[in-house]
Amino acid sequence: MLPNLTPDVALAERLFDELRAATHDGVGITRTAYGDGERKAHAIVRAAAEAVGLETRADRVGNLLMTLPGSDRAAKRVLLGSHLDSVQSGGNYDGAAGVLAGLAAVAGMKRAGFVPGRDVTVVAVRAEEAGSWFPISYPGSRGALGLLTAGELAVKRQDSGRTLAEHMREEGFDPGFVEAGGRTFSAADTVAFLELHIEQGPVLDVEGIPVGIITGIPGSRRLRAARVVGEYNHSGATPRKYRRDAAIALAELAHRVDERWVQLEAQGHALVCTFCVLGTTAEAGFTKIAGEAEFQLDVRSVNPHSVDALMETLYDIVPEIEARRGVRFELGKETSSRAAPMDAGIQAGLKRAAEQLGIRHKGMASGGGHDAAAFVQAGIPAGMIFVRNQNGSHNPNEAMRMDDFAAACAVVTRWAAEAAQ
Amino acid sequence: MLPNLTPDVALAERLFDELRAATHDGVGITRTAYGDGERKAHAIVRAAAEAVGLETRADRVGNLLMTLPGSDRAAKRVLLGSHLDSVQSGGNYDGAAGVLAGLAAVAGMKRAGFVPGRDVTVVAVRAEEAGSWFPISYPGSRGALGLLTAGELAVKRQDSGRTLAEHMREEGFDPGFVEAGGRTFSAADTVAFLELHIEQGPVLDVEGIPVGIITGIPGSRRLRAARVVGEYNHSGATPRKYRRDAAIALAELAHRVDERWVQLEAQGHALVCTFCVLGTTAEAGFTKIAGEAEFQLDVRSVNPHSVDALMETLYDIVPEIEARRGVRFELGKETSSRAAPMDAGIQAGLKRAAEQLGIRHKGMASGGGHDAAAFVQAGIPAGMIFVRNQNGSHNPNEAMRMDDFAAACAVVTRWAAEAAQ
Repeated sequence: MLPNLTPDVALAERLFDELRAATHDGVGITRTAYGDGERKAHAIVRAAAEAVGLETRADRVGNLLMTLPGSDRAAKRVLLGSHLDSVQSGGNYDGAAGVLAGLAAVAGMKRAGFVPGRDVTVVAVRAEEAGSWFPISYPGSRGALGLLTAGELAVKRQDSGRTLAEHMREEGFDPGFVEAGGRTFSAADTVAFLELHIEQGPVLDVEGIPVGIITGIPGSRRLRAARVVGEYNHSGATPRKYRRDAAIALAELAHRVDERWVQLEAQGHALVCTFCVLGTTAEAGFTKIAGEAEFQLDVRSVNPHSVDALMETLYDIVPEIEARRGVRFELGKETSSRAAPMDAGIQAGLKRAAEQLGIRHKGMASGGGHDAAAFVQAGIPAGMIFVRNQNGSHNPNEAMRMDDFAAACAVVTRWAAEAAQ
Repeated sequence: MLPNLTPDVALAERLFDELRAATHDGVGITRTAYGDGERKAHAIVRAAAEAVGLETRADRVGNLLMTLPGSDRAAKRVLLGSHLDSVQSGGNYDGAAGVLAGLAAVAGMKRAGFVPGRDVTVVAVRAEEAGSWFPISYPGSRGALGLLTAGELAVKRQDSGRTLAEHMREEGFDPGFVEAGGRTFSAADTVAFLELHIEQGPVLDVEGIPVGIITGIPGSRRLRAARVVGEYNHSGATPRKYRRDAAIALAELAHRVDERWVQLEAQGHALVCTFCVLGTTAEAGFTKIAGEAEFQLDVRSVNPHSVDALMETLYDIVPEIEARRGVRFELGKETSSRAAPMDAGIQAGLKRAAEQLGIRHKGMASGGGHDAAAFVQAGIPAGMIFVRNQNGSHNPNEAMRMDDFAAACAVVTRWAAEAAQ
């Protein structure tokens, strides 16, 4: 029988406040991947873990490990965690909630004098939001799992023009670890990874349920730097037949792709499709026909066939619009990520824990990508638990309630204690 | 019998070079309305007119008048001219060609010792391109014709935040003239206004014709500062039914309005419809659903019913998209201008002159608006002649050939000599 462990939610609450105070930018929270705010957040969390009495160390690519030793140090460890970085002017909970939930769980175990059968390690992963700046996903977790390639170290951050390797080195980390195929975690030493995260959409809030147990993380196909090239001309003096209007060509593409999404959804496909950026450039102006437009497209689904069905439509429409409107699409490099199903045993364990605690929950697919996907790719069983959250994420108005966070922490603690037996 | 007058095209060529040298900004030509480049251009042209021996003066709102006196100084004058300002980084010919053609014509008359029966005045109008900065059209010509209102003097330039009256005063002009209902020209003192202009579209070039004789100037309905307001949300985690995507709402509007244009054109309507600016704002970014988008719309036709038919469709679609997509359109103030038919007698005179000179020509509607429309509105018979031009206008690549300009100048000179008899 497991003791009735309670997480140290007060510790997490105090750390949320410290993180907010240290990384508020006047509008929201900014903890840039491999940058100033992320560095401050790691220092705050590391100091707290040391105060709790955990073993702390950073791996060579900057991920922070905070371990409650188990009775069998050679046994495969249980990992809990998420990331500490954020998007530009984001919220305080996206990422940090998962790290602080892990700390609350192990601090609760330690306070109760509970010694797990195996190490329970809380990990604060680097740079989960790196994708806001680099054309790359999850360099922190993938760097720890032997999944980051040498080629990816050379991608450049859009604003700084410097490579991922350079940014890592600036923070004192060692891209050579990646090049040498180093791994912090593998299936040989890790029994499971559990990531708590705020829900980034409105579903739990609208449906009145505090906790989601995640069935899978969607895969994606993305165009991050696509353009339409036409010709600037006078808006009054250029008859339709002589136009090469990039703006209207893009509007047609986006509208028709969106109509295809409606059609696929009616056929039972579950996917999302977003033109995150869409429009004319700074050169556009009144009385000019736009000679250039740009867009970013993000298509996701747990089912790769759904993503492919949408993208096929896009690739069919493009040459047709090009021919009819005299424009040229430059779609740029397409990036993609594979869908990652969550481990069935972990899902069952989380459900059991929630039910024993009397906490309402629902099974649901993740909308966003998460570090847990990298663990799945590395062959490590992974699970996720979502916490109800208002106002979405990636904005300063994230509004997770502490009661909901405490309920989810209780599930994490009970599950982790069982998994670490 | 009229003498066989030839325009002084060499004078115009020299002045084109001087204007280019004085107002090139490194990319194109910038002669900001009521600003530095326009001031320099007026000084160059005024000095040249004085050297030719014309009577020169500026009216109280800054328009420059350069007069070859006629034998009857009390008779109604013939006006030739256009504007000297330009859009930001535009070309050297848009506007200036009409002023220099007028100068070439009267310099040719003077050189030949020809004394017209009435004054022939070349006018360099201010601020025809003011619409690039102010939400207002033709303050220079309208200010000279008693058509500018006191309310319009108070409109603010978008970038400076200062009013039209303030910008006029800064250049030494007198907005009080407008407020007092002053007029430089009226139907009582002006028999005709002829404006030569480069064609701003590709029609003459594609069809291999050097000169266009204009039948009318289109009217317009315009949205200069329209927005769509939705809600920023996570692109992965927000199911379709919970989205309020401003980008895709705008794409749908633009595409459907464009389809309506196709339909109207098939029904015989002649119009143009341009989303000059269309898209998400700086706040948009990867993994976000756009919560805001903005657009500028420019719809023009010589036939107001064609413009109205398109705009009715837009106003029908907007509430339907709002209801379905959970967004709100803020269309802002709609501005409009009336179509202006060119005087039938002037068209016939221009045609006769071109035929006598053996110059190929075609009748065509203007695409853009021009100062000539303001003269029509003031009850002064007006005409326009277009010169074939490559690469459109409002860009640095305008490429009127001097041979075509010389042909059009010959038509202007012959017509003006006849009109001034």
